[in-house]
Amino acid sequence: MQVITSKDNEIIKNIRKLKEKKYRDIGNEYIIEGIKIIKEAIIEEAKIKLIVVCEECIKDGCIDQKMLYEIAKYDCIYVNQKVFSLLTDVQNPQGLLAVIEKKNKEENIDYKQDIIIALDGIQDPGNLGTILRTIDSVGLKQVIVSSKTADAYNPKVVRSTMGAIFRVNIIESNDLLETLKNAKKHKYKIMATSLETEKTIYQTDYHKKIIVIGNEANGISNDILDYADEKIKIPMLGRTESLNASVATAIILYEYVRNKLK
Amino acid sequence: MQVITSKDNEIIKNIRKLKEKKYRDIGNEYIIEGIKIIKEAIIEEAKIKLIVVCEECIKDGCIDQKMLYEIAKYDCIYVNQKVFSLLTDVQNPQGLLAVIEKKNKEENIDYKQDIIIALDGIQDPGNLGTILRTIDSVGLKQVIVSSKTADAYNPKVVRSTMGAIFRVNIIESNDLLETLKNAKKHKYKIMATSLETEKTIYQTDYHKKIIVIGNEANGISNDILDYADEKIKIPMLGRTESLNASVATAIILYEYVRNKLK
Repeated sequence: MQVITSKDNEIIKNIRKLKEKKYRDIGNEYIIEGIKIIKEAIIEEAKIKLIVVCEECIKDGCIDQKMLYEIAKYDCIYVNQKVFSLLTDVQNPQGLLAVIEKKNKEENIDYKQDIIIALDGIQDPGNLGTILRTIDSVGLKQVIVSSKTADAYNPKVVRSTMGAIFRVNIIESNDLLETLKNAKKHKYKIMATSLETEKTIYQTDYHKKIIVIGNEANGISNDILDYADEKIKIPMLGRTESLNASVATAIILYEYVRNKLK
Repeated sequence: MQVITSKDNEIIKNIRKLKEKKYRDIGNEYIIEGIKIIKEAIIEEAKIKLIVVCEECIKDGCIDQKMLYEIAKYDCIYVNQKVFSLLTDVQNPQGLLAVIEKKNKEENIDYKQDIIIALDGIQDPGNLGTILRTIDSVGLKQVIVSSKTADAYNPKVVRSTMGAIFRVNIIESNDLLETLKNAKKHKYKIMATSLETEKTIYQTDYHKKIIVIGNEANGISNDILDYADEKIKIPMLGRTESLNASVATAIILYEYVRNKLK
């Protein structure tokens, strides 16, 4: 077993670059980290390009024999702890990370789905990851993200998706308004969350709708709000005026579930 | 205006200690940081014990005159940037933080509320803060937190409550099972979320219920699960088995809202 011990190694340099969106875009790949998510990547048949194993973690027994056997089917490199610490993004690394090819680059929306979530500028990686996880939990296969939205392949986002990143198709839209206009040609209606409406999420249907979720601080862009066919709000009984963006998305998505199960 | 420039100043040393739960418990106080939340503390009439102002931020104009006038009604101390940087918990500080007395120390539960959320070991500060914010949004005034739950007065939690920390009464329970037994004497039923039930959140009522939310990784403690009168689950249509804890709480709380509005 050859162990890479130099931070100047070309492979190591290239993996480190994947911490930046620019290089994730160029290489069409991203990093996942930890035993659980790598197991999930294997189960979900994600395209695993490379697995990086920390030598000391094998010796310590953090990575068990069964897992070592599993990952040996893929391209693996072994590094020492010093080099691994340059690659890891977490405080207590488990000594295992992998480079994954993005699910797909195609920008084709599947117009057969009942509802589609479109994110107009979600900024917090934890919120974005949680939204992807919730989308996955209701059986939806795709999400539209505007260019103002955080990168879905950011390590923090990937972590909080809990594996949903392998199942949900991330469709990046450079012009969300244009994307919505196209969707209307496929008989979708555009639904926007807004505080300035009396219509609640209980007073609508969830059939052929694109549901737009806005930025945490500023909500949905004005042009999209103007273009929407329907504005809805989540009724609130307390004194707060707003909900966390991932919470708001979940409440709406589970209203869709409730309707579907009726 | 006297400006504190030494990190060894007693007041500064005491504020720094409030980064630790132990000292927040002893002093019955916690730190809030940023202009927006301090404004909210003033509006909500939180007990503001002290406001710390960074001198440079006044000169820079980050803190406007109106705000300076507002805060002058309270005990203020002025510090230089070096000292402020020892107190702040955020990457881009706004030069303003405050020490707040905890809402109350009493452990009295208000048994008049329809439903009460009990948190059995929520660990992630972001999740806990978001849950408090959601509880506030549905007009509930209290939450029960087990001793295994993260400290609600941790700066990260406080930040993500978006002001709900001033409105929701945090009732700390050293023995959650005992607390639940007491609640039953007040005619509450205990509702636990579980994957091992067929009963969904749509098939129950939300009247006189204590709803227990479990730890992110391990769920609800076995003794509490055994003691619960009712187990319910959130139906999932996708392949994931679980939801983010704050999302799960929100979906249940808004099922309560929906029932209330019917």
